[in-house]
Amino acid sequence: MTKAEIIAQIKHKRTFLCVGLDTDIEKIPAHLQNEKDAVFQFNKHIIDATSNYCVAYKPNTAFYESEGLEGWENLEKTIYYIKTYYPQHLVIADAKRGDIGNTSKRYAKAFFEKLNADAITVAPYMGFDSVEPFLGFNNKWLILLGLTSNSGSEDFQQLTLNNGQSLYETVVQRATSWATSEQLMFVTGATKPDMIRQIRAIAPDFFFLVPGVGAQGGDLGAVAEVGLNKEIGLLVNASRSILYASSGEDFATAAAHEASSLQKHMEMLLAKYQLI
Amino acid sequence: MTKAEIIAQIKHKRTFLCVGLDTDIEKIPAHLQNEKDAVFQFNKHIIDATSNYCVAYKPNTAFYESEGLEGWENLEKTIYYIKTYYPQHLVIADAKRGDIGNTSKRYAKAFFEKLNADAITVAPYMGFDSVEPFLGFNNKWLILLGLTSNSGSEDFQQLTLNNGQSLYETVVQRATSWATSEQLMFVTGATKPDMIRQIRAIAPDFFFLVPGVGAQGGDLGAVAEVGLNKEIGLLVNASRSILYASSGEDFATAAAHEASSLQKHMEMLLAKYQLI
Repeated sequence: MTKAEIIAQIKHKRTFLCVGLDTDIEKIPAHLQNEKDAVFQFNKHIIDATSNYCVAYKPNTAFYESEGLEGWENLEKTIYYIKTYYPQHLVIADAKRGDIGNTSKRYAKAFFEKLNADAITVAPYMGFDSVEPFLGFNNKWLILLGLTSNSGSEDFQQLTLNNGQSLYETVVQRATSWATSEQLMFVTGATKPDMIRQIRAIAPDFFFLVPGVGAQGGDLGAVAEVGLNKEIGLLVNASRSILYASSGEDFATAAAHEASSLQKHMEMLLAKYQLI
Repeated sequence: MTKAEIIAQIKHKRTFLCVGLDTDIEKIPAHLQNEKDAVFQFNKHIIDATSNYCVAYKPNTAFYESEGLEGWENLEKTIYYIKTYYPQHLVIADAKRGDIGNTSKRYAKAFFEKLNADAITVAPYMGFDSVEPFLGFNNKWLILLGLTSNSGSEDFQQLTLNNGQSLYETVVQRATSWATSEQLMFVTGATKPDMIRQIRAIAPDFFFLVPGVGAQGGDLGAVAEVGLNKEIGLLVNASRSILYASSGEDFATAAAHEASSLQKHMEMLLAKYQLI
């Protein structure tokens, strides 16, 4: 999926919402629990209910791996379902991988070829050769962790280097020389709008994937104010607040309601900043 | 597996070798390629041939994920095989995971409970709450990336912070306050002995997992000189040089020969430093 296609989808649907498929088998409604592929069935209902209100889906691999082989199968089926029935939606494998070049190549194969995801999140700690293998694929995206939404981002990401920059600023700055904004996005946590503003100054043309709205407490209006650029440049993710909006049989309707209300807020923001 | 048990195994077998099971389906001998679970069959032969010369096995998850569902199944079977027939060997899932706390918990479940690995490698970029969930398991190990063996370690790990320390030193120093040497080890790349010396000064009691000997060019003698401590404190990994010592039907014998020669070198070093 190209950058132009993502932007066109956002403008057409008036939303920059990404729905995080962090599906926890213990949290899905009781009436689905006993089905063999309960997680996939749950995802299918969530996807059908929310597709009009979002432009991307983001399964986090941890929630699938923790269910072993069956979990990996549910991940495969979920991505296949989206790519088959909702081919305009970007599929982001939130995997936070990264290894030496020879090994990262295998992760690229796993996520871009075997699973057919459009994008993968990658951790920057191991540097350029750990990141490069994800860049050689047509219309596939590398989404590099810049600043994350958790408290632990203070431990290393926010440390100051001897050049006066924080580590996350240096990560983003260097990475902008590794790839263009047609291949590379950055993760910038919604809980820290002031820092998103700094990152936007360093990477004006790049898309940011912003987790942390909803259960983690990030403010959508504040994120839009500092993060939107002239090509929109934002995908904002919500997971738990949508997936578990209701724990009853009406979970899909409740998820749609939650996604729709985020879409409305996003439409208002896109209009406010004259982007639609 | 406790630290005392690992040390006892090393002394008993006179080796601190870890065999990296980075099994590449394209590199295994032709006569195995057509078997349904070729990767597992290959691993089984390698494990049987090398078990006397090593104390740990380290499958890297990328090589299994890149083969999809079948790959994940081969990973499960490989770990199950080691835990069943070689329960004295430490199984390290080289997964380089790490996510927000809520999500890292799921990775801990995936690797410690579902796959039954003894240890997992974790990337530090997301800080304490991304690391903590791996620490709550009895006799399981978190192996944190400190300094990696690849060229990309210069991009961020080796940057100098405004406290005068490099990032990798600060990562190791902070992490020593998060867990004891009974639960936590560090990855320190074999290609940089001077830096292993610095890390040893910061973390005198911790085990280091040292990749990069063999195909990546690290020097075992140099690593031992700077890395060994009074409780040995080193696991040195070799992968490609053992797995692909021969591409013929004699691959297992060739792997045993290579592992045995590393074991002899390690025995000599353990004696030289009066550790056995």
